[in-house]
Amino acid sequence: MGVRYGIIGSGAIGCFYGAKLIQAGCDVHFLFHSDFEHVKKNGLRVDSVDGDMVFPRVNAYGRAGDMPECNIVLVALKSTQNHNLSVLLSSVVGPKTTVVLLQNGLGGEGLIAQQTEAEHVLGGLCLVCCNKRGPGHIAHLEYGKILLAEYSAAEQPAGITPTMREIAATFEQSGVSIELSEDLVLTRWKKLMWNIPLNGTCALLDAPTDKIMSCPQTRELIIDLMKEVQAGAASQGRTIPDTYLEEMRTFTDAMVSYMPSMMFDARHKRAMEVESIYGEPLRTARNSGVHLIRTETLYRQLTLLNARLCHQSPFDQ
Amino acid sequence: MGVRYGIIGSGAIGCFYGAKLIQAGCDVHFLFHSDFEHVKKNGLRVDSVDGDMVFPRVNAYGRAGDMPECNIVLVALKSTQNHNLSVLLSSVVGPKTTVVLLQNGLGGEGLIAQQTEAEHVLGGLCLVCCNKRGPGHIAHLEYGKILLAEYSAAEQPAGITPTMREIAATFEQSGVSIELSEDLVLTRWKKLMWNIPLNGTCALLDAPTDKIMSCPQTRELIIDLMKEVQAGAASQGRTIPDTYLEEMRTFTDAMVSYMPSMMFDARHKRAMEVESIYGEPLRTARNSGVHLIRTETLYRQLTLLNARLCHQSPFDQ
Repeated sequence: MGVRYGIIGSGAIGCFYGAKLIQAGCDVHFLFHSDFEHVKKNGLRVDSVDGDMVFPRVNAYGRAGDMPECNIVLVALKSTQNHNLSVLLSSVVGPKTTVVLLQNGLGGEGLIAQQTEAEHVLGGLCLVCCNKRGPGHIAHLEYGKILLAEYSAAEQPAGITPTMREIAATFEQSGVSIELSEDLVLTRWKKLMWNIPLNGTCALLDAPTDKIMSCPQTRELIIDLMKEVQAGAASQGRTIPDTYLEEMRTFTDAMVSYMPSMMFDARHKRAMEVESIYGEPLRTARNSGVHLIRTETLYRQLTLLNARLCHQSPFDQ
Repeated sequence: MGVRYGIIGSGAIGCFYGAKLIQAGCDVHFLFHSDFEHVKKNGLRVDSVDGDMVFPRVNAYGRAGDMPECNIVLVALKSTQNHNLSVLLSSVVGPKTTVVLLQNGLGGEGLIAQQTEAEHVLGGLCLVCCNKRGPGHIAHLEYGKILLAEYSAAEQPAGITPTMREIAATFEQSGVSIELSEDLVLTRWKKLMWNIPLNGTCALLDAPTDKIMSCPQTRELIIDLMKEVQAGAASQGRTIPDTYLEEMRTFTDAMVSYMPSMMFDARHKRAMEVESIYGEPLRTARNSGVHLIRTETLYRQLTLLNARLCHQSPFDQ
């Protein structure tokens, strides 16, 4: 029997990568929340720029406790659900399990390492544009690469492990490119260089990425926010070169008109990942004496917006 | 014949103070835009916490050129209309006229001094909560004081002039309190200490003042923005003491749940006064080497929001 994968949190990201793993021939088990009954009956559908994927039957579960123990568990929950991690991972994670956290922001891997008996905890940073269209129905619009790095409690580079190579080889069978990184902290801050500027600005102004980048004033704001994230990384001893900032800008300019996750959440009156994407990085940098003023401004604004969203719909997945 | 007053721009502010001047026994002439026909036929109505005022007939004009020359002209246009100042003031302003600009932000008095033959140009800062309810129908919710100071091209304190005392005496007959100031620049920056933090934040988050002040995160943002305005004033050689910052905070906490002008404009899809309230003060401070980062962030965000509003409805009053 091959490697058994578990997907905890089957939203857009979880379903997309889970579908790719099925395509690669893996035994994949999905935990669903509100979509469970629909998927159990109708299966899973991913409309993808790389070719549509339709699976009339998938291994779908409605309760975490019904799931089997897995070799590799992808956690694709929103970080707003991280208080449920220990319950959601109790059946799928055993002492030989590797957990890969596919989540934005900072702080999640430490929680998993503390609250489960997982052998390895990895962080996976997804460079992908996908949205949920309906129950069990995902749209994959662009990109797809995952940056993968191993967590260490000391927050030091943890090297490239054999498990990381295995996961990469599996994904690459279905055309998902995996970039292995020795340093999770650096990798997470590099991802924040996109998320901090764009995610909250798009949500706050209810404007997709191309509108934000084509207005000269907000474009300047985005670039200044990228520089703040560079300073935040530096506060953790990690150097993000200016060329990477250039790359991020070019990447964003070249993107389709994209609605980042927070904007998508705001439009659907669901909680946004304000603490993991803004609160944690701000506190981390500030603990090292670095004050990211524009990021803090955005964080404070988003906190009020989020309180309103959560008030309207406190239970989101 | 007594003193003749002209009101240019008869929105909420112009109508409220114009009504108070009628109550004080003055000869008042109003220039209306879209409400002209309605007011000509039905008069003016101000629902006020200080007692309602109803005037079945007022001297209403639909075109600036039809107005008589006036002794005192109150300009209560939105600053987004300042490109029309010379046309709108050509008939009402003569060489003996005093013009009082009742407008937020920075930069308007200089335009009037350059573009008209007015003898004196004053700035009037209105501490008042009022909104337009419908054609010729204003609601006065709270407060009403005007801070009055004379413009000087050198941006130096211009003292308390006899004209200022006369205007104050007239307004006080109808219960409007006038505070005379020797220094317009200081007075304007003091008013900006409310407008820069609250006006744009409320507009951006579509939340009235009490919601902004009761969320701990946005409350901190407001206080930090007030400190930036204090630094902006200092860049112009003006000291705003910390006690004034405290006063502004207490004043805002004690307010009714208020929708500032920009939020009102955003809700009604009209242009907001982004340049006079944010752009000019930012440029003024920056020219003196002071960089107001939070204010700039808000300015950049508001610029995109405003572009969207103006695109939807380019012609606003």
